[in-house]
Amino acid sequence: MKLLLKIMYNGRDFMGYQYQPDVRTVQGSLTSAVSSCFGRDMKITGCSRTDAGVHALGFCCTAEPAGEHPDDWLRIPVGKVHRALSRFLPEDIAVAGECEVPDDFHPRYSVVSKEYIYRMYDTVAADPFLTGRAWHLKHPVTEEGLCRMNEAASCLIGYRDFTSFMASGSKIEDARRTVESLSVVREGRELMLRVRADGFLYNMVRIITGTLADCARGTMDPGDMVRILEKRDRCAAGKTAPADGLYLNDVTYDREISWKLD
Amino acid sequence: MKLLLKIMYNGRDFMGYQYQPDVRTVQGSLTSAVSSCFGRDMKITGCSRTDAGVHALGFCCTAEPAGEHPDDWLRIPVGKVHRALSRFLPEDIAVAGECEVPDDFHPRYSVVSKEYIYRMYDTVAADPFLTGRAWHLKHPVTEEGLCRMNEAASCLIGYRDFTSFMASGSKIEDARRTVESLSVVREGRELMLRVRADGFLYNMVRIITGTLADCARGTMDPGDMVRILEKRDRCAAGKTAPADGLYLNDVTYDREISWKLD
Repeated sequence: MKLLLKIMYNGRDFMGYQYQPDVRTVQGSLTSAVSSCFGRDMKITGCSRTDAGVHALGFCCTAEPAGEHPDDWLRIPVGKVHRALSRFLPEDIAVAGECEVPDDFHPRYSVVSKEYIYRMYDTVAADPFLTGRAWHLKHPVTEEGLCRMNEAASCLIGYRDFTSFMASGSKIEDARRTVESLSVVREGRELMLRVRADGFLYNMVRIITGTLADCARGTMDPGDMVRILEKRDRCAAGKTAPADGLYLNDVTYDREISWKLD
Repeated sequence: MKLLLKIMYNGRDFMGYQYQPDVRTVQGSLTSAVSSCFGRDMKITGCSRTDAGVHALGFCCTAEPAGEHPDDWLRIPVGKVHRALSRFLPEDIAVAGECEVPDDFHPRYSVVSKEYIYRMYDTVAADPFLTGRAWHLKHPVTEEGLCRMNEAASCLIGYRDFTSFMASGSKIEDARRTVESLSVVREGRELMLRVRADGFLYNMVRIITGTLADCARGTMDPGDMVRILEKRDRCAAGKTAPADGLYLNDVTYDREISWKLD
């Protein structure tokens, strides 16, 4: 069996999720903490990668001993691992759920859909408490601008070829994905973009966000979305929004996960 | 005339408000930014000092040219200074209001009362997004615990000698202050302490918070508050809560301030 962990992290001080030697990464920090906690070398496998500065509220990863090990390696009751682990985790990573999964479970291949949130705000002055956590839009978003964002968003919902919304240089051959939901809602001074899809291309949420922000400002038209999709060209879409407004919010798997946190 | 500024800052990366050579302070950063903005040496005078890690939502300070200067030194319309200044301010300081005040106005001596907020939260796991912004209480606060906090708080309201709630070693002779209001309210997983007084002693809010947290846990009794005040001894009160949950929220002056922010 493997241990499936749902984790939160503040991406500010990480050079992204994926392990790299000599730099601080989420995977590296998690691997050290989990290995110390269980007193053996552990292997951490994540549901995806996130870039430097990107945050997570519901990132999922499995933890299992590296190399040969007995099946009953997990000596801490499921639901209480987070308590043992909290002593080893840095302040910017926390466990939000835990569950036992069988060996055939793969945290990436068993994913059915993922949800990202992108936070923006549009006050005149930058907010020192939102720095690194939300994108400061220099142009206030009017009611009409918000409508334009959602009109553009609606064109991107469904099974589409998202080549235009993929970082140029990506080696992905098939850029067709199903966006299940995509909307922008005002919450006080913040604008929250929420998008769920069966898969995401590299920079896809950030390019969608940048394009919708252009629609809000009026420098792009919601009516152009279909044409942008058809062009299958990154240059057709808007700019890439900064990394630090992006949060991996939720991962849905091909089976029910009974998260525990005692 | 002087320029009165209301500023917000995230205290995380500052060694407190007050200027010190060779370290990053709010006053130092503000002085540099304001001097660059006006193209001359400027003098910044704050409403109080805050410790390393303490935040502000409504800190007030005056800005005026250092040394001899003509009375019409301010060439930017009041209400628009924040726009000019924003190009020079670091990401963790922002202007939230501005106003012209006469030369006899003093940002500290003209204060009538100040309000601080102290943020706590009591989820089992530490929250990576609240690190440095709120105090993580390791013991969940029950409804009854919250009542005990407010019962204890009510004993501290009024004109009292707060020697027991002042950092030991303080040189203040008269520790009598008037606490106008003091309460703790639950807001979701957070507990918000809000206190307004005509003046605060060194560490006063943090010692009050630590003492109320002890009351919530049950290691101290609200009925002891009167005795603690009477002892006039720092050792009688509870522990000092950490700096990073504390926010200077509002400053009230002896005259109406017409904040502008165009």
